[in-house]
Amino acid sequence: MIIFHPLSTGESSQELNKKKIINDPVYGFISIPYEIIFDLIEHPFFQRLRRIRQLGMTYLVYPGALHTRFHHAIGALYLTGKAIEILRGKGNEITDQEAEAVSIAILLHDIGHSPFSHALENSLVNGVTHEHFSSLFMEKLNEEFDGALTMAIRIFNGTYSKNFLHQLVSGQLDMDRLDYLKRDSFFTGVSEGVISSDRIIEMLDVHHDQLVVEAKGIYSIEKFIIARRLMYWQVYFHKTVLAAEQMLVKALQRAKELSMNGSDLFATPALQVFLKSRLTAADFARDKKNLETFASLDDYDIFTALKVWSSHPEPVLSTICRGLVDRRLYKCLLQQKPFESRMTDKLKKNAAAQFKVSEADADYFAFTGAIANNAYNPKEEKINILFKDKQVRDIADASDQLNISVLSGPVTKYFLCRHPLLQHE
Amino acid sequence: MIIFHPLSTGESSQELNKKKIINDPVYGFISIPYEIIFDLIEHPFFQRLRRIRQLGMTYLVYPGALHTRFHHAIGALYLTGKAIEILRGKGNEITDQEAEAVSIAILLHDIGHSPFSHALENSLVNGVTHEHFSSLFMEKLNEEFDGALTMAIRIFNGTYSKNFLHQLVSGQLDMDRLDYLKRDSFFTGVSEGVISSDRIIEMLDVHHDQLVVEAKGIYSIEKFIIARRLMYWQVYFHKTVLAAEQMLVKALQRAKELSMNGSDLFATPALQVFLKSRLTAADFARDKKNLETFASLDDYDIFTALKVWSSHPEPVLSTICRGLVDRRLYKCLLQQKPFESRMTDKLKKNAAAQFKVSEADADYFAFTGAIANNAYNPKEEKINILFKDKQVRDIADASDQLNISVLSGPVTKYFLCRHPLLQHE
Amino acid sequence: MIIFHPLSTGESSQELNKKKIINDPVYGFISIPYEIIFDLIEHPFFQRLRRIRQLGMTYLVYPGALHTRFHHAIGALYLTGKAIEILRGKGNEITDQEAEAVSIAILLHDIGHSPFSHALENSLVNGVTHEHFSSLFMEKLNEEFDGALTMAIRIFNGTYSKNFLHQLVSGQLDMDRLDYLKRDSFFTGVSEGVISSDRIIEMLDVHHDQLVVEAKGIYSIEKFIIARRLMYWQVYFHKTVLAAEQMLVKALQRAKELSMNGSDLFATPALQVFLKSRLTAADFARDKKNLETFASLDDYDIFTALKVWSSHPEPVLSTICRGLVDRRLYKCLLQQKPFESRMTDKLKKNAAAQFKVSEADADYFAFTGAIANNAYNPKEEKINILFKDKQVRDIADASDQLNISVLSGPVTKYFLCRHPLLQHE
Amino acid sequence: MIIFHPLSTGESSQELNKKKIINDPVYGFISIPYEIIFDLIEHPFFQRLRRIRQLGMTYLVYPGALHTRFHHAIGALYLTGKAIEILRGKGNEITDQEAEAVSIAILLHDIGHSPFSHALENSLVNGVTHEHFSSLFMEKLNEEFDGALTMAIRIFNGTYSKNFLHQLVSGQLDMDRLDYLKRDSFFTGVSEGVISSDRIIEMLDVHHDQLVVEAKGIYSIEKFIIARRLMYWQVYFHKTVLAAEQMLVKALQRAKELSMNGSDLFATPALQVFLKSRLTAADFARDKKNLETFASLDDYDIFTALKVWSSHPEPVLSTICRGLVDRRLYKCLLQQKPFESRMTDKLKKNAAAQFKVSEADADYFAFTGAIANNAYNPKEEKINILFKDKQVRDIADASDQLNISVLSGPVTKYFLCRHPLLQHE
Repeated sequence: MIIFHPLSTGESSQELNKKKIINDPVYGFISIPYEIIFDLIEHPFFQRLRRIRQLGMTYLVYPGALHTRFHHAIGALYLTGKAIEILRGKGNEITDQEAEAVSIAILLHDIGHSPFSHALENSLVNGVTHEHFSSLFMEKLNEEFDGALTMAIRIFNGTYSKNFLHQLVSGQLDMDRLDYLKRDSFFTGVSEGVISSDRIIEMLDVHHDQLVVEAKGIYSIEKFIIARRLMYWQVYFHKTVLAAEQMLVKALQRAKELSMNGSDLFATPALQVFLKSRLTAADFARDKKNLETFASLDDYDIFTALKVWSSHPEPVLSTICRGLVDRRLYKCLLQQKPFESRMTDKLKKNAAAQFKVSEADADYFAFTGAIANNAYNPKEEKINILFKDKQVRDIADASDQLNISVLSGPVTKYFLCRHPLLQHE
Repeated sequence: MIIFHPLSTGESSQELNKKKIINDPVYGFISIPYEIIFDLIEHPFFQRLRRIRQLGMTYLVYPGALHTRFHHAIGALYLTGKAIEILRGKGNEITDQEAEAVSIAILLHDIGHSPFSHALENSLVNGVTHEHFSSLFMEKLNEEFDGALTMAIRIFNGTYSKNFLHQLVSGQLDMDRLDYLKRDSFFTGVSEGVISSDRIIEMLDVHHDQLVVEAKGIYSIEKFIIARRLMYWQVYFHKTVLAAEQMLVKALQRAKELSMNGSDLFATPALQVFLKSRLTAADFARDKKNLETFASLDDYDIFTALKVWSSHPEPVLSTICRGLVDRRLYKCLLQQKPFESRMTDKLKKNAAAQFKVSEADADYFAFTGAIANNAYNPKEEKINILFKDKQVRDIADASDQLNISVLSGPVTKYFLCRHPLLQHE
Repeated sequence: MIIFHPLSTGESSQELNKKKIINDPVYGFISIPYEIIFDLIEHPFFQRLRRIRQLGMTYLVYPGALHTRFHHAIGALYLTGKAIEILRGKGNEITDQEAEAVSIAILLHDIGHSPFSHALENSLVNGVTHEHFSSLFMEKLNEEFDGALTMAIRIFNGTYSKNFLHQLVSGQLDMDRLDYLKRDSFFTGVSEGVISSDRIIEMLDVHHDQLVVEAKGIYSIEKFIIARRLMYWQVYFHKTVLAAEQMLVKALQRAKELSMNGSDLFATPALQVFLKSRLTAADFARDKKNLETFASLDDYDIFTALKVWSSHPEPVLSTICRGLVDRRLYKCLLQQKPFESRMTDKLKKNAAAQFKVSEADADYFAFTGAIANNAYNPKEEKINILFKDKQVRDIADASDQLNISVLSGPVTKYFLCRHPLLQHE
Repeated sequence: MIIFHPLSTGESSQELNKKKIINDPVYGFISIPYEIIFDLIEHPFFQRLRRIRQLGMTYLVYPGALHTRFHHAIGALYLTGKAIEILRGKGNEITDQEAEAVSIAILLHDIGHSPFSHALENSLVNGVTHEHFSSLFMEKLNEEFDGALTMAIRIFNGTYSKNFLHQLVSGQLDMDRLDYLKRDSFFTGVSEGVISSDRIIEMLDVHHDQLVVEAKGIYSIEKFIIARRLMYWQVYFHKTVLAAEQMLVKALQRAKELSMNGSDLFATPALQVFLKSRLTAADFARDKKNLETFASLDDYDIFTALKVWSSHPEPVLSTICRGLVDRRLYKCLLQQKPFESRMTDKLKKNAAAQFKVSEADADYFAFTGAIANNAYNPKEEKINILFKDKQVRDIADASDQLNISVLSGPVTKYFLCRHPLLQHE
């Protein structure tokens, strides 16, 4: 088998200069700052992110939410460039090599995401997180790029000497969050989530190797925390989005169940591997081929399968899939307390009777679960505010007005999803 | 096989009222004006448009251009509502039934689009246009909705008594164009394409059953014509977009060629039908099943196949597909005159030699073609300007400054595409 | 003296139709919904608002904040039109006459503002509030319009039978606030203040004659309350804005002091009246001429006087004025507790010594004060949330997450302003 | 007379760092790049621009158009910074000193504008242009800043060795135009005028010391030329704007006439000087005091006078002024050909009779004139397009589609203004 690979000649590098600007409806023009960043973007691992939506099934509620992890990573790169400029302008040393490395780290911070990550982690790739895959991809790329990613990986892992660089990539105020809140807000059209990433970045500084925010930025931080919480409830945990994602989990679980029991389901070769075997972290570490297989999975494999399965003779699978394809979604209730088992038991019994399935399978038509969100969790890491007297205080203390202590407690909500035709009273 | 279909009960109609607002980053909130519009949106034929991008492969150049025909149709519906309001406000009679009918007509105007329409029309569904499919879908829906779409279909076809309603749906200034220019501009981030759809709609009126624009709107119309032309060259016919779309045509042609010759290619069941047979307009009219098959095709079927084919042992097919998946796109030249055959012949010879293929197959690696664009073609239909003295003149005459006659001639450009590694000198 | 007054002929009414659209960078096009609204806008009392900035001296900190009360009133009118449409769509009866009346009420709600209202109320027009002037202007207009404003005035005063109409004009969620937060945010460029007025209005309903918000709008309301609070501290009470406004108070107090003591200061005839006499509410009620005089005051009278006074031989007056004109503003400290008198006494002593003025006049160079803000004060009026079970709860109870009780307490801050050259340690 | 001048101590320099960001609704945050730029902005000459609107009387038609020359100058400074960065990135040498100098030059390019420049040049300051005043102010500032502006002045005058720096400040594509088109479009709300300043700047390069645009920027340039033309007819030469500005000219001419004839009119001291004497360019060069007097004139002096004069016993003056204050504007006709004298003579006769004035004074109530606009005038200076083969062609040749030759001819229109009550048939 012959494949002609353009990058094997030097030709395309001639074109490099002309392609170094990317149009972004959110920020305008984004310039690619380094050759290696350009080469990483060109790499198939990164191009794959063009086919993985940032917000999974959310487009079923917010039809504009089709933006991809590709665009998000480029956006986070852009904000990182701004942050470097501001921090340097305030006298914090960031060498050129460090600037390049932190740019690489942010570009690749999400490279390990699978399509519909959370759903897949609960069905096909049990137990292996996207953070773990990101590390595997970075190691692989570091080999291909002859070690040029070493510092970036150390920054990403938090083992590089300057901790504040790590915080730019992963922390309470990292460029990841600043970009995704703004971008998700933009593409969903939920204007309440708009944050002033510009202003927050302008207020960043470094104090004792910690990323801090100047005191006059307190209001922007409060606003950021509130906006993030609102986006959680209005978008990320919207009950219809939740219903669609839970349906996806159920569909993939059912498909895997059927596959492992010997049924032959339509799937791309890559998806077949995940339907027919239980790969663990160890398997991905051991055999590079498994990582390549994972790298070829994207939204297309998953949704194409759902479409074909929606005509499958097995009724549980086809019912759920048809619902996703035609947007006949489960009904979802959200409440503060767990649902009483008396109620859920009855619902499952109804489901078994109505859909003529076993009690075990009734769980595909009615089920409960919990979701949690910390708008701000100072136990994990703080947002440090730097006052003029060089004192540093956590935003939870520094904010005299907003009751951050209330915000920062974990908020758990409980959901109950049921097939829309299921009798519930 | 049992499929539980929610709409068979009355329950979901209770939910109707809560879902009548759709978030749109372009216009804000869009309210669904009629029950039947809501039901049409819920229909699987329309939900399918959620999976067909408005701009096909354009996202490979403008990564934000992921918006779908679903969102565009909703947007055009919104503008139509505005136009109805304005026209009524100026004393033009539009009955409630007509308002509903024209809303249906604009909602469904693009329902017959296949994924990557232009590419597919040149490969898999030879000779059947998306307009033809739209008519077939509307007829089918009209049956399902017991004739409720009859007036809408007449408006769409131009056979309804009030011609200006047809012009709102299909004409030089229809709501389709006003929405797509604005929407494509928004999601690509090409701010030059922004048009003032608001202002143009404010200036609309009806004169002798023709849609006209008030004289003070001349500048906005000039701007609209210019913006449209710019969007053509900067987005729709961008040479890299062109390259990607031509590659897709070539890939599908090759796949069909192989399929018809007995090769077994990976494909969804629906795509298999199109790879293995040559369905004509007559076939779609004759057998409803063929239309159903067409209705289950979307971007997922096509791109998933490309992904799997990129590892196919047949090198022509896999080379093109790999190029699309990893974004190693053909190089494309655009010029005013046709390319000289001496040059293209030599290029094809080189291709045959370099890629070790027959001269016929060399056409997959180097080829030419033409594209044409009329920013404004008064021969087809005019943009009528209504002056205060009730005189009506075509914009090409009314505009004293802009040389519309130059703009309105068809602009043809010729392209030459070649594999990026092909020696060309 | 002959003045030719165009409206005495019918001619300009011919032009009416052409002028019924106003361009607004915030909302796009705004249509004027009623003839009487058009006529009120044309009236000199309303045209006067073109010369009164919404945010007084704020442009010295946010240079874009030049928008006027004229534009704000038109914007609030626009939002009121939207709200009427939504409320009617949910089955709440609003007659055409009521719709017109509430539109008039919102258009005129701020008509009594003087230039730099808060500063003037503390210097030239002691004790007469802008609400009082608004009532006087409305009564005067009602006479001129032969009683056509009667219902509007009752809605404005809260004496009309449908209380929810009054709440649209003046209440926790009135169209005034929705517009000014959005508009101030837009023109200052402080994106954190952006509120989703669209979404809030979409969620409005009426329950037992009270304006309520549907339960699913809770997050938007929380966001609105937060945004409002942030705008207070970031814009309205910005310490440099505060300094400029306090300087204006001081300049006008000094000018009045000098005038009352017989000095002759440059001023427009209208301003002279206010410098040389102490008009009370009774004076304005008694003599229509006084209201006319007030009606001819605007930003131009005040700032022109400051400019001329900045070269006045009296050093206290000229120093303060020169500072405002050349933007050499006082330094301002803000803190949670009152400043200790020991410190302020010392500062005033320094001022007396340094600027060679009496201890009484030292107060012009160093002084303290307090400002207070309630982001939400449920004691005044509640924001009622309507749940699906038709229960109504105050947002402070309904919001399970945000500690509204903290937000809703009054926040008082204390300021200390001093001349920038004043020795302070 | 004692005036306490803060900048005489070093104190405020401590504050410098905190004030180096300016909020701009158009671009977001603007950082002040150099200390001297900061000091120039702080200077009273520059602060004066806060009180001079960019678009004079345009706010009477577009109520948002209140933005000032201050904000525009800061915006042009911002774009210049971007351009420097892009040009340097393409290998064009710009030393740090040159970067600072060109920034100064653009900041001060409009410093000589009087309030309502065009009106004043035709009434009070006959024969002295704003360019001339700009030079005088720069010379004065250069003295105060000990020669630090010398290079900036040479760039401004076009006498510095690198011509392309001058072109950034003053040329077909200078940062002045790029900012004002975008800013005027933003604040008027006329979205058709939006240009992609970002994209144009990205495409700039230098070739043989000329500012050029890369070939792929052709469409953006065409769009820029079209947008500029549209802004002319839709905003700058809008017939109602024109009417207001002509009324201002007439009011000031009348006031000067009365003053020179011994009448005593209300005016600020600075305006009095211009009403009572005929200062020439020589007078401003000779006596620095005259420049200081000019420097203290702004929109406040002019509009305050109009307000007071609107109650003046002389009916011609008060009629025009009252019209401006209450927005009872003259009617204005625009056409391609000059108005026939038969018609205008008759109109003036009517005016004399109707308003009981002499035939000479009738000219205040009915008059004609001409305005001209070149969207693009290649005779003055070209917009050079740089092709890949290093050939340079003027946009008028390079653009194969748009008939630039039509656009580039001067477009003259003729206007006829008359008092709204004047009988005209």
